[in-house]
Amino acid sequence: MIRILWPGKTKNPELRRLIADYVQRIARLSNLELIETKEARGLREEAAERIKAKEASDLQSRLKNDFLVCLSDQGKEMTSEEFAQWLQRHLETNSRPLTFLIGGYAGIDDRLLRRADEVLSLSRMTMSHELSRLVLLEQVYRALTQMKGWPYAK
Amino acid sequence: MIRILWPGKTKNPELRRLIADYVQRIARLSNLELIETKEARGLREEAAERIKAKEASDLQSRLKNDFLVCLSDQGKEMTSEEFAQWLQRHLETNSRPLTFLIGGYAGIDDRLLRRADEVLSLSRMTMSHELSRLVLLEQVYRALTQMKGWPYAK
Repeated sequence: MIRILWPGKTKNPELRRLIADYVQRIARLSNLELIETKEARGLREEAAERIKAKEASDLQSRLKNDFLVCLSDQGKEMTSEEFAQWLQRHLETNSRPLTFLIGGYAGIDDRLLRRADEVLSLSRMTMSHELSRLVLLEQVYRALTQMKGWPYAK
Repeated sequence: MIRILWPGKTKNPELRRLIADYVQRIARLSNLELIETKEARGLREEAAERIKAKEASDLQSRLKNDFLVCLSDQGKEMTSEEFAQWLQRHLETNSRPLTFLIGGYAGIDDRLLRRADEVLSLSRMTMSHELSRLVLLEQVYRALTQMKGWPYAK
């Protein structure tokens, strides 16, 4: 089972639609759960640490024995092929839910990064957190179609 | 001046709107030209080399003394900060247009890769060519706002 956690709904309407489309496509190929946890609001940007800590509480309450994969530009990079093999291995051998966590506007709290079983990077570049959601879902969908032996557009 | 070249219009309507939005935002910060060149149609997927060669002709006809940056997952990776510094250096010291080229569905023809002054990678992962367009534009916009000293969402 694949779980995806992030704080707050996606605000950009086009990204929201693209994300919903990939969620539907992935759900046809795998057991998928997307959870949009509480987003910290009303805090000034300078309060990044407080935002992250606040959001971490709700994120953490959703985790049980999950194999937690945090997304961070500091994480480990993989090619799409390596990611597909990695995903397949985890889905086949791991009885724990495989949970991808993308931080909110301010990023991911350190205690979640410490809790992570893997820290994965989609790019050395820093993307907006809403765009990262789409890029992650496209890679998960791409990996699942590859596992099924389907062709997939480049 | 920044030029962006790719073959064909963006078909996904949400991505097309997101891309148009970033083009507008970038055009407010820099001299920008986006050229959507001819897309090869009616060729089967197996004919990737022929598609790339066909599309390369029109792409190449748009290049003069451009400083050509081809986007490829085999290219050089940079963090967003490194990319912003690199972009600033090129815009300030280079009198040639700085031209980013993203391949179509089948990728970039070898003769364009050989012509490239730089090959840049947005990610080790292979993204769809339409999604790469959005990710590149977000990085260019992010870099330009950073050069202006504006705050930018993570």
